[in-house]
Amino acid sequence: MTDETNHTIRKRARDLGIVIGDLPTGAYNAITDVADVRVGHTTLVSGDGPLVRGFGPIRTGVTVVLPHGGNLFLEKVPAAIHIINGFGKCMGQEQIDELGTLEGPIALTNTLNVGRVTDAIVSWGIRENPDIGIGTSTINPVVGECHDGWLNDIQGRHVHEEHVLSAIDSAAGGAVAEGNVGGGTGMTAFGWKGGIGTASRVIAPEHGGWTIGVLVQANFGRRDQLRIDGMPIGKLLERTAVDEPPERGSIMLVVATDAPLLDRGLRRLAKRAGIGLARTGSIAGNGSGDYVIAFSNSPVNRIPHHPTTLTHTVEMVVEDGPIIDALFQATVEAAEEAIIDTLFAAETMVGRDGNTREALPVERVVELLRR
Amino acid sequence: MTDETNHTIRKRARDLGIVIGDLPTGAYNAITDVADVRVGHTTLVSGDGPLVRGFGPIRTGVTVVLPHGGNLFLEKVPAAIHIINGFGKCMGQEQIDELGTLEGPIALTNTLNVGRVTDAIVSWGIRENPDIGIGTSTINPVVGECHDGWLNDIQGRHVHEEHVLSAIDSAAGGAVAEGNVGGGTGMTAFGWKGGIGTASRVIAPEHGGWTIGVLVQANFGRRDQLRIDGMPIGKLLERTAVDEPPERGSIMLVVATDAPLLDRGLRRLAKRAGIGLARTGSIAGNGSGDYVIAFSNSPVNRIPHHPTTLTHTVEMVVEDGPIIDALFQATVEAAEEAIIDTLFAAETMVGRDGNTREALPVERVVELLRR
Amino acid sequence: MTDETNHTIRKRARDLGIVIGDLPTGAYNAITDVADVRVGHTTLVSGDGPLVRGFGPIRTGVTVVLPHGGNLFLEKVPAAIHIINGFGKCMGQEQIDELGTLEGPIALTNTLNVGRVTDAIVSWGIRENPDIGIGTSTINPVVGECHDGWLNDIQGRHVHEEHVLSAIDSAAGGAVAEGNVGGGTGMTAFGWKGGIGTASRVIAPEHGGWTIGVLVQANFGRRDQLRIDGMPIGKLLERTAVDEPPERGSIMLVVATDAPLLDRGLRRLAKRAGIGLARTGSIAGNGSGDYVIAFSNSPVNRIPHHPTTLTHTVEMVVEDGPIIDALFQATVEAAEEAIIDTLFAAETMVGRDGNTREALPVERVVELLRR
Amino acid sequence: MTDETNHTIRKRARDLGIVIGDLPTGAYNAITDVADVRVGHTTLVSGDGPLVRGFGPIRTGVTVVLPHGGNLFLEKVPAAIHIINGFGKCMGQEQIDELGTLEGPIALTNTLNVGRVTDAIVSWGIRENPDIGIGTSTINPVVGECHDGWLNDIQGRHVHEEHVLSAIDSAAGGAVAEGNVGGGTGMTAFGWKGGIGTASRVIAPEHGGWTIGVLVQANFGRRDQLRIDGMPIGKLLERTAVDEPPERGSIMLVVATDAPLLDRGLRRLAKRAGIGLARTGSIAGNGSGDYVIAFSNSPVNRIPHHPTTLTHTVEMVVEDGPIIDALFQATVEAAEEAIIDTLFAAETMVGRDGNTREALPVERVVELLRR
Repeated sequence: MTDETNHTIRKRARDLGIVIGDLPTGAYNAITDVADVRVGHTTLVSGDGPLVRGFGPIRTGVTVVLPHGGNLFLEKVPAAIHIINGFGKCMGQEQIDELGTLEGPIALTNTLNVGRVTDAIVSWGIRENPDIGIGTSTINPVVGECHDGWLNDIQGRHVHEEHVLSAIDSAAGGAVAEGNVGGGTGMTAFGWKGGIGTASRVIAPEHGGWTIGVLVQANFGRRDQLRIDGMPIGKLLERTAVDEPPERGSIMLVVATDAPLLDRGLRRLAKRAGIGLARTGSIAGNGSGDYVIAFSNSPVNRIPHHPTTLTHTVEMVVEDGPIIDALFQATVEAAEEAIIDTLFAAETMVGRDGNTREALPVERVVELLRR
Repeated sequence: MTDETNHTIRKRARDLGIVIGDLPTGAYNAITDVADVRVGHTTLVSGDGPLVRGFGPIRTGVTVVLPHGGNLFLEKVPAAIHIINGFGKCMGQEQIDELGTLEGPIALTNTLNVGRVTDAIVSWGIRENPDIGIGTSTINPVVGECHDGWLNDIQGRHVHEEHVLSAIDSAAGGAVAEGNVGGGTGMTAFGWKGGIGTASRVIAPEHGGWTIGVLVQANFGRRDQLRIDGMPIGKLLERTAVDEPPERGSIMLVVATDAPLLDRGLRRLAKRAGIGLARTGSIAGNGSGDYVIAFSNSPVNRIPHHPTTLTHTVEMVVEDGPIIDALFQATVEAAEEAIIDTLFAAETMVGRDGNTREALPVERVVELLRR
Repeated sequence: MTDETNHTIRKRARDLGIVIGDLPTGAYNAITDVADVRVGHTTLVSGDGPLVRGFGPIRTGVTVVLPHGGNLFLEKVPAAIHIINGFGKCMGQEQIDELGTLEGPIALTNTLNVGRVTDAIVSWGIRENPDIGIGTSTINPVVGECHDGWLNDIQGRHVHEEHVLSAIDSAAGGAVAEGNVGGGTGMTAFGWKGGIGTASRVIAPEHGGWTIGVLVQANFGRRDQLRIDGMPIGKLLERTAVDEPPERGSIMLVVATDAPLLDRGLRRLAKRAGIGLARTGSIAGNGSGDYVIAFSNSPVNRIPHHPTTLTHTVEMVVEDGPIIDALFQATVEAAEEAIIDTLFAAETMVGRDGNTREALPVERVVELLRR
Repeated sequence: MTDETNHTIRKRARDLGIVIGDLPTGAYNAITDVADVRVGHTTLVSGDGPLVRGFGPIRTGVTVVLPHGGNLFLEKVPAAIHIINGFGKCMGQEQIDELGTLEGPIALTNTLNVGRVTDAIVSWGIRENPDIGIGTSTINPVVGECHDGWLNDIQGRHVHEEHVLSAIDSAAGGAVAEGNVGGGTGMTAFGWKGGIGTASRVIAPEHGGWTIGVLVQANFGRRDQLRIDGMPIGKLLERTAVDEPPERGSIMLVVATDAPLLDRGLRRLAKRAGIGLARTGSIAGNGSGDYVIAFSNSPVNRIPHHPTTLTHTVEMVVEDGPIIDALFQATVEAAEEAIIDTLFAAETMVGRDGNTREALPVERVVELLRR
């Protein structure tokens, strides 16, 4: 039932000449360009035909982002969450707000599966830190979600503990699979097949030379809203025979950086990811739970679980002049491109009850953009 | 393993002559004095002796508060959450913030069990509303937690779906069991056995005659901090031979009212519950996740899941003069008394590894208060 | 020194064929399309040549928006503020957050003048309600600001009480002057002359038929960031010989509606104005204080200062399906167009020290957009 | 009209044997025990008899707290604001939230005077930093307020620029005048004469040895609510013939520390000041604007206005175990004592229209507490 090999073979937006923004990308144009960030997916695709509640068809999964390769609970990283529209069922926000740190992976999955994925992250935490809840404090699972019920048997909650652990254990740096993978498997964006997307930007050496990486699970928007680099592609594309269901979407955005920011600075970054989202055509519709989580894995700012001193010494990027604005611009650009990339990566999928979500007609889009 | 009969036989604080505040209580001095509010507990107590991780001993449970007896998903109620200290792992906050409504029960349990209880509430939601996630939107589970790992095999996450459903299905009005029941089973407050407590207040007819009910799951505080009606009982009580473990506590407070408030007004009430908490001696210690959720089940303010009009007509208590202040005072008083009541209700409990949490020495406390 | 006649003679963006979004505008394509909303400006332009601190040259003013024509203190309106980037010095936010109401005009001026304009609004409040601070509560002045110091002697704080009172007393419905008027007099947007802009949208009768109006004081952005209806006009325009100073900008957005929303719903609208802002090219730069204030003047939702009952009966637009999304879309569109309109309305201005801010080369822009 | 010599001759609560909490005080039991913090008052008392609006009688003033003795704009300090109840008209919150810094004095005055005091702080800023608004950014004035209109001609707004500048220029360390001084001149607390109060606590060397200082402007509460160290003094005191006007109060609390906290940690401290407030009997009544501003003037955490590097190196107190809890406890205790001290310091005052606010009957209170 698990399919780890569903790596996209479609070209990425940038490979087709679509260049969003001005800043250069990192080597992979992915969140993993932030050194030591790791991404893992478990993709669950099985069954066809009519929905049998609790059994399938299954079109779902889980994607995890790990801030670094060490013990995440023992070496926490500064983090912040920004909520664009809170019609969502995510887990883990308040402790991040209060303490300004992230102490485990970020998991993205489907809406009704949040409880089980939360529970799986508790299991992972205990596996890695057997003292949790006994000799030390408990762990704060962080889980985001979107609604894949149009293609997937969402009531079945098919993402189980082993799937989450598998995604975490297989998480790696380097190129990141996009589209119909992990938590993005059953997602829809702008009426086309959506899913996972990623992008990165590197700011100039005189501004610090830091990297911003974004990974999204995109599941929002109506067809006529889609804009690519400002162009109203959604309106220019010919209508298809397929009915568009009413939007029930959402988007989860993860922003990673090696710039030494703390929670307040990261909240500012997270807000700028919302600007990238706005440029793709989103109006943050009522039913769309739109969340951004940002973290810094700068080695100078790790927060130890067992501090041995009275204070931590940390660094903060100066919030003045062009330095912080370069990080803001990088976040806007990477968020916008990561969202667009989901559409280029995701392939047509047939789900429950024969519901079919078509892939974006890439050739036609490229032709429209060239005009 | 389930024990529904553990109703307290100890006297409540008020029965011992301890009267906190000025306003009269409702008939039961309980959250259920708000008409149609229901409370259910599932209490899990089994095993003794050394901790065997994943197996026991078990000293935990789940408590649920239902805003009314109808279909909670179809007839939502206005609600708000106030976070006093966010070092917690609760579920459901953001949607309440965004939409100002509660669409299911509030569940209180142990910290590591939040994932499973969340999942159970999804199951309950689907049972009651089979279209969830298919023909209509998903459901927002609301789960609060405290850390009972000093008495309970918390890693075992022993609260399962059937326990949550049982608590919901058995929820009732009338007298509410306090102390070592439901989510309060393994809890500690001010170094004494804590748990569930409840209280209510009724404001004057000329101020609207509405009722405020509070229910708490109390698991915070050091012995020397305890104050009862202002008296420094924690300092006056003789020290015992039992070691006090470092505080890792938390408190969940649920505020119910039939006053027709909306989310903003309810947030104001929720903040006043924190004042009641402060008066018991809490300093909202770093490790204490302190949350308040407030709702109004006023029949005039139900928010239908399937609206048939362009607007809802609702009512809001005027926020001027003595009316809103009476509701504030009622909330302060009921919160303070509900917390104190946990200590009077809870009996000594022996948990994992023989860890023993003594009951508050009530006779001595009463003697000190009479002086 | 006061010049009330500086009504723009340049064409508005829409008159030049630039149509942003899909929804129809109101009669004036202005915030005053929301019935009973009034706008007043006092424009202060005097002196030329070198800056003499405290004396001039003066290029500043104040713009006021009045929610309705009655006694604003006695008949408050629901309101909310959303802060996109809080690097600003505005007045009045917290009480709006707490009580969800606005009880006077909204005033927009320059950054260093906030104290004096606040004081002037107190004077206005006392003039209209002589009991303020004696027989009844005090008044909450609401003042927004942007930094016009590149053209104006900002240290001089030239907006005095009489100018604020004059703007309030002359406030009217109907067509609204844009560009170099009122608080927008000395402002810069995207490196071009900015200032005041406005726009409106009317949603479909089946969605309620309500109107959204937006008025902005725009003073942000770099030249290369400007996008008009998605087109990267800022990059396409030829560079000029004029140096672009570093951005120190900000934007104030006022959203008015007759839809019966309360504070929470209005906060949701206010956030969508930020989406319109994002589409014009803003990255909410560090130095840009970006604020949105939204209010509803629906006659069914007035909040009386002297309530005579225990509760208010109010209405709330249902937040489900296409109705609230129509209001969101209207807000996005009106905000985007109001910002763009500032550039079309504002004329070249020479300020202190000969600093010259050129008007947007409208003909060239239109030519680029037609391509 | 200015009276700088109104230093209290009444004994402080602690001098009368009233010891609140467990931690030791600093040398002066004042906010100035935090090294380099300075306090200045300008007290305005003139006229008697009937209110002549705009002319008097005058019973008001301004109190300023300076974080350190250097150039506050060039060497900013980390800061945070917590709003307990936002029915207030303060200035300066949003920028502190956004940037986490304070760049000038904190001024406390009467409600209607906020505009003029804001303007005076702009003047001070320009005096100290002539480039403000021309060659560098503008300044964020921070002004808190309470309503002294029962004794004072509040509509007259008698605190002028020279009074603010005088308070700033005369600010000093050492003992702090309490009671009827500065912004506290015309204030009422718990139906008795209130005003300015201050206290401090020093935490143990093994917890860092840092100092917490609190200064309050207290103007809230009803007589029957007053508690001193938990004792219901308000209820125990005999009723007097004087009518108690309805509460229209507020409280401003300023928390200073030399512990190296940043904005997030300071927000946590600020919230604990609210716990101290709760213990005095406050229910944060509807009409009471209750604000806390906290700052750290730790020399290791100054944020330069003109940074010369890409990052700041700063320190943060570890938020684990007893260290941060010691700071929380110190804040709770100092806030509670500072509020109580206002009542012991303030003397009976006759104001406009012969309105008389009696001093707390200290001897009777001490007698009641001794029982």
